[in-house]
Amino acid sequence: MYSSLKRFLIGKPLKSTELGEQKLTKLKALAILSSDALSSVAYGTEQILLVLATVGAVAFWYSLPIAIGVLILLTALILSYRQIIYTYPQGGGAYVVSRNNLGENAGLIAGGSLLVDYILTVAVSVSAGTDAITSAFPQWHAYTVQIAIVLVILITILNLRGVTESASVLAYPVYLFVVALVVLIGAGIYHAATGGITAEHEAAAVGTAVPGITLFLLLRAFASGCSALTGVEAISNAIPNFKDPAAKNAATTLVMMGAILAVLFSGITFLAYTYGVAPKVEETVVSQIAEHVFGRSFMYYFVQGTTALILVLAANTGFSAFPLLAYNLASDKYMPRMYLMRGDRLGYSNGILTLGLASIILIIAFKGQTEQLIPLYAVGVFIPFTLSQTGMTLKWIREKPQGWLGKMLINSMGAIITLTVLSILFLTKFGQVWSVLIFLPIIVSIFHRIHSHYSSVGEQLRVEAGYVPEQIEGNVIVVPVAGITKVVEHSVNYAKSIGDQVFAVYVSFDREEEVRMKKKWEERHPDVRLIVLHSSYRSLTRPILKLLDTIETKANENNYEVTVLIPQFVPKKGWHNILHNQSSVLLRTYLLYRRNIIVSTVPYRFSK
Amino acid sequence: MYSSLKRFLIGKPLKSTELGEQKLTKLKALAILSSDALSSVAYGTEQILLVLATVGAVAFWYSLPIAIGVLILLTALILSYRQIIYTYPQGGGAYVVSRNNLGENAGLIAGGSLLVDYILTVAVSVSAGTDAITSAFPQWHAYTVQIAIVLVILITILNLRGVTESASVLAYPVYLFVVALVVLIGAGIYHAATGGITAEHEAAAVGTAVPGITLFLLLRAFASGCSALTGVEAISNAIPNFKDPAAKNAATTLVMMGAILAVLFSGITFLAYTYGVAPKVEETVVSQIAEHVFGRSFMYYFVQGTTALILVLAANTGFSAFPLLAYNLASDKYMPRMYLMRGDRLGYSNGILTLGLASIILIIAFKGQTEQLIPLYAVGVFIPFTLSQTGMTLKWIREKPQGWLGKMLINSMGAIITLTVLSILFLTKFGQVWSVLIFLPIIVSIFHRIHSHYSSVGEQLRVEAGYVPEQIEGNVIVVPVAGITKVVEHSVNYAKSIGDQVFAVYVSFDREEEVRMKKKWEERHPDVRLIVLHSSYRSLTRPILKLLDTIETKANENNYEVTVLIPQFVPKKGWHNILHNQSSVLLRTYLLYRRNIIVSTVPYRFSK
Repeated sequence: MYSSLKRFLIGKPLKSTELGEQKLTKLKALAILSSDALSSVAYGTEQILLVLATVGAVAFWYSLPIAIGVLILLTALILSYRQIIYTYPQGGGAYVVSRNNLGENAGLIAGGSLLVDYILTVAVSVSAGTDAITSAFPQWHAYTVQIAIVLVILITILNLRGVTESASVLAYPVYLFVVALVVLIGAGIYHAATGGITAEHEAAAVGTAVPGITLFLLLRAFASGCSALTGVEAISNAIPNFKDPAAKNAATTLVMMGAILAVLFSGITFLAYTYGVAPKVEETVVSQIAEHVFGRSFMYYFVQGTTALILVLAANTGFSAFPLLAYNLASDKYMPRMYLMRGDRLGYSNGILTLGLASIILIIAFKGQTEQLIPLYAVGVFIPFTLSQTGMTLKWIREKPQGWLGKMLINSMGAIITLTVLSILFLTKFGQVWSVLIFLPIIVSIFHRIHSHYSSVGEQLRVEAGYVPEQIEGNVIVVPVAGITKVVEHSVNYAKSIGDQVFAVYVSFDREEEVRMKKKWEERHPDVRLIVLHSSYRSLTRPILKLLDTIETKANENNYEVTVLIPQFVPKKGWHNILHNQSSVLLRTYLLYRRNIIVSTVPYRFSK
Repeated sequence: MYSSLKRFLIGKPLKSTELGEQKLTKLKALAILSSDALSSVAYGTEQILLVLATVGAVAFWYSLPIAIGVLILLTALILSYRQIIYTYPQGGGAYVVSRNNLGENAGLIAGGSLLVDYILTVAVSVSAGTDAITSAFPQWHAYTVQIAIVLVILITILNLRGVTESASVLAYPVYLFVVALVVLIGAGIYHAATGGITAEHEAAAVGTAVPGITLFLLLRAFASGCSALTGVEAISNAIPNFKDPAAKNAATTLVMMGAILAVLFSGITFLAYTYGVAPKVEETVVSQIAEHVFGRSFMYYFVQGTTALILVLAANTGFSAFPLLAYNLASDKYMPRMYLMRGDRLGYSNGILTLGLASIILIIAFKGQTEQLIPLYAVGVFIPFTLSQTGMTLKWIREKPQGWLGKMLINSMGAIITLTVLSILFLTKFGQVWSVLIFLPIIVSIFHRIHSHYSSVGEQLRVEAGYVPEQIEGNVIVVPVAGITKVVEHSVNYAKSIGDQVFAVYVSFDREEEVRMKKKWEERHPDVRLIVLHSSYRSLTRPILKLLDTIETKANENNYEVTVLIPQFVPKKGWHNILHNQSSVLLRTYLLYRRNIIVSTVPYRFSK
């Protein structure tokens, strides 16, 4: 039942050798890895205008120079990440770059904040997409949390099915969104150029003096605009998902994404300025522009629909990047080994499931109102941005390969810009981002504890050249018996065949039974010693454990190994299990976890 | 932690030999076993008047002859049960009597309906007691279900502590209730005799013609009054709990209980008639009488308080009888073996816990409104009453001991009366009791299925005189290895010491690793054959199971036994377990439940 349901949801298992076929072409990768970055166009311009609006509509012209600043930052990031892709073609992004060049802790900080960030990506994007859906269908508003959870589950299943199958489904909305916005921008500029539409408010000309404007405010507007850049790092983390030549394909995809992002972002910002759009609570900036350009026509709904869709799909970026990052951390022994295993469809299922579960928990905890988490999410991205650019800068300085100066300049410029953005975020939004200062140290310390456990285990298990294991001179076999049954006969027989010394142990609760048992035993097994333990407190395990202490001490002296044989009934039907005392399970657990005793389970299958 | 909490709640474990000290004196037994029967005085008279009131107050005088009928029934029951106690001093009541004399199915019907009945007793009495409490403190009304659950938990804990300790706590309220009602009746009769109080309504004289009265109505009133007799059987089920001479003490206690019940019931019925009390929705009959006699004085509240308390304590009767009945059914293999075991304090803990849990489920399912269950509960008592009396009658006829005719007459009278009551219950309240016709067959069929499972298991395990177990000619040991570690070294060593043939099995996911492993293995263990299995689907268990098929077939041909050694890491700290793949647990479960293979778990304890 379970396995056929699993097959229906996930698809049939794939052989390890089919891995190549699951890899991404550039166009599919663009769709699957850039939905996060591209979706931020839907709110990037709005974030800038919201800050400027605190001074007045007259300040809106500043959105143009700020957008140019964001575009410069974008260019710097794309250039920097292109270098990272070529230098670290095995993927891993900020974590690998920081760890290799800045040391373990820097790497773990980058990795930890990215892990948390991907969870935030999923929770925030799905919640935003759900809001878009419930705005269209207000009668569903009461079920926001449930809808968001269903969406996360659907995306999780798609990802468990494997990377390219998800891509096929998820690619079209991204393409449609890009087409929709390109048409919107083209039509908007054409109308504006031909003077076909009058602006809502007359926008103040560029360069108009704005009373009350401060550098702090401008920086804050810039930092808010930088939220449009989250998701840029996704490609550098996912290089191993690309078709060969992976690094080259990834770099090309990155540039394509950067170009599209630049066009859409600057286009929307320019139109917002030209049409004098002001941010409103009840309507997004993109929606206002689309209404100006198309009216409430089909194209308007097309723009709105694809925007809502891409917000949900942005979550998918997290699903591509999180499992790979978890794999990288796990293969360096900072995360549990289970993140190393590929599932039936060759995806890292445990990472996918962890991400899905964690984001569902976040959605429930915040009752679907995850917007408060956006600044935290920006900080979580810019910390690894800064660390990786700094790491690359140091790398060029240390290694000085051909043309290092240019490369170093690009990365150091990136480092400075991202550090600046990070500082601005901390300065202007400390109230929303302070928690990162608490949870990052906790995560890093967990990474360290896991690492030290694995190291110590590895050390304890390692077989050095001259290692000689303890010799086993003989075996003492202990068989707990409850009476004389076929199971006991079989166990005693087996014990005699493997052991040098066999003890049967009978725990009695009743003196009369005891006498009867002794007599029967001597008749049937005169060659096997029966040890009778009387249990005053009706416990089976306690007297046996006590006896084993004695046997163990003696066995250790003579280099004998102690084995306890425990019979286990295997009934035909599951419900029959409640009809049999589970004392054998209890005893086995006790012995394994409390003593150094080998426990042999001798199954006895009932034939009916 | 768990064990110290348990000790705090339940008390220190007792030795099996301390059992005698836990037994009941007559006076304590009276308190602990009669609270159910005595508490029905609180509503018995009211049930009769409620039926008569449908014709009019003029019919109330019929309550006197009906009460006499109930008293006759009570006398018949007490006499019958006295005979049962002496004949079956080992206890078991209706179940044992019916099974021995009427056959298996009659016994199981009696046993099954009593089991359900005890659960109903607990749920109904605790709910009634809770209603009494929330009537006094209306602000707690919203928490009826919670209060009832807490009460059940408290009574469960008291019973887990052991029979006499519960008795000490629970005895006083019963005594106080008896004292309160005796004082009430005495004072009431005195006032009536001295003419100190005028009746509320002038009661119609005995013999007054009542228009509209029918035999059906009178029978119904009689059947309702018989609800005062539930709980009479409790003593006969609990004889083993009495101090020696158990049977004699139990019989004496039964007669004492009958006498008290007769006095209280007839007293209350007489006073109700004398004072012309009519049943009211908002005030019980006992409360009205008490108010007439004492006014709203201390004595009034004393009567009300002890009545509420005894209703709650009536639940305790179920806790005394259910575990013993479950023990009887389990020792006849109709119920799971776990009901045979005595807990730390020598009570049958599993029965006590099952009863507590089941009644909590009933309380939750009926949201604390369990009054609808009362007729069902009466039917559940009168079925075993009828069966056991019939069984006794047959017994006397078959065995014809000295004086059998008198005994037979007593029991057959009992059988006829109880069958009549049962018929009346079915006739007059079918709508509320039909479900018994569904759940009783289900319960009986479950008993049969359990029985047939145990019988077939017993048969399969039984060692007959000439039985010779299969000989074991040698042992094949299979050691799954994941690399060369100290754990593997130890396992291989152990395998060599117990086995005649040792195979190491390595499941590879990667061709390169495979080659490396083979080379290393041959260097270190040239004498142990390494079987390498390549797993295309990244599954560990599937290839191993396939290999074991082959090995098993071969081994069976030569009478070799196959043992698989599975290493198990035992980390120092619990949370470390999630850092290790649990594939060993999975493999062991698969092997035990799917194959006939002995699984040896070799623990490896990490020292840090």
